[in-house]
Amino acid sequence: MDQQEMMLKLILTAWNGQIAAADKLFNGFTDDELDYEVATDRNTGVYLLGHLTAVHDNLFSLLGLGERLYPELDQVFIFSPCKSGKARPVTNELRNYWNSVNEKLAQHFNRLSVDEWLQKHTNISDEDFAKEPHRNRLNVLLTRINHLANHIGQLTFLKK
Amino acid sequence: MDQQEMMLKLILTAWNGQIAAADKLFNGFTDDELDYEVATDRNTGVYLLGHLTAVHDNLFSLLGLGERLYPELDQVFIFSPCKSGKARPVTNELRNYWNSVNEKLAQHFNRLSVDEWLQKHTNISDEDFAKEPHRNRLNVLLTRINHLANHIGQLTFLKK
Repeated sequence: MDQQEMMLKLILTAWNGQIAAADKLFNGFTDDELDYEVATDRNTGVYLLGHLTAVHDNLFSLLGLGERLYPELDQVFIFSPCKSGKARPVTNELRNYWNSVNEKLAQHFNRLSVDEWLQKHTNISDEDFAKEPHRNRLNVLLTRINHLANHIGQLTFLKK
Repeated sequence: MDQQEMMLKLILTAWNGQIAAADKLFNGFTDDELDYEVATDRNTGVYLLGHLTAVHDNLFSLLGLGERLYPELDQVFIFSPCKSGKARPVTNELRNYWNSVNEKLAQHFNRLSVDEWLQKHTNISDEDFAKEPHRNRLNVLLTRINHLANHIGQLTFLKK
């Protein structure tokens, strides 16, 4: 394994580790428990489940990996705050969406080469990427790992 | 810039970004405000400040970068829970410790080469490292970025 492959392995391991930690948290709560706010006046567990699913689903288009699975989630879980009153899938369905998105992402992630990870994401022009080559797919992944870790820290506050 | 250097740059940028986010949070609160719990029955802001400082200070020894600055913090902020009643530095002093640790770490981080980042950390034997070469310094850094992101998510709950 060369250095680039080792570094990619470390980053993918970090991603997988955070996904596993989130899975463990979500699976540890009933649907009813996920309806509680993680702290007073903060997001509910189920909102964070939907939010993380939507943000991860966005990776298909942002990383140029194909069609998104559930683009309709953005309206409720990204563009609207918790308790917006907007119609949303039932919690059990959201659990399935969360798993489907992460499983399909993992299939792509395990197949991409280092060269491919260092290619531009779809939200930057060729001109800008020539000047700012760090704005690549791998950088997007690193920001999403932190985003997930951030919300995991909040989900650990959810009470049974 | 070769691929390894690009990947290292992305990871260091992620670290620096999380440090900057934590700085912004800590600097946005008075000492009195940091005494509040981030959520009901959870850690106080100042405990998290001390905890993160201690965990980052541990990186000097774990990454083989020299002597730690404040090893005495571990007893209060790693081995003891919040509100243990153990004597601790005043908050303003802790703020200085936090800055000193991160600034000195940054000096080391900016100097280490990719080769050096992929060397073993000090908490693994030569024999084990030969079998598990992913247990290197860079892997430690990635876990600490997530640890920091995790607590930043909680610190955003602290109320003024």
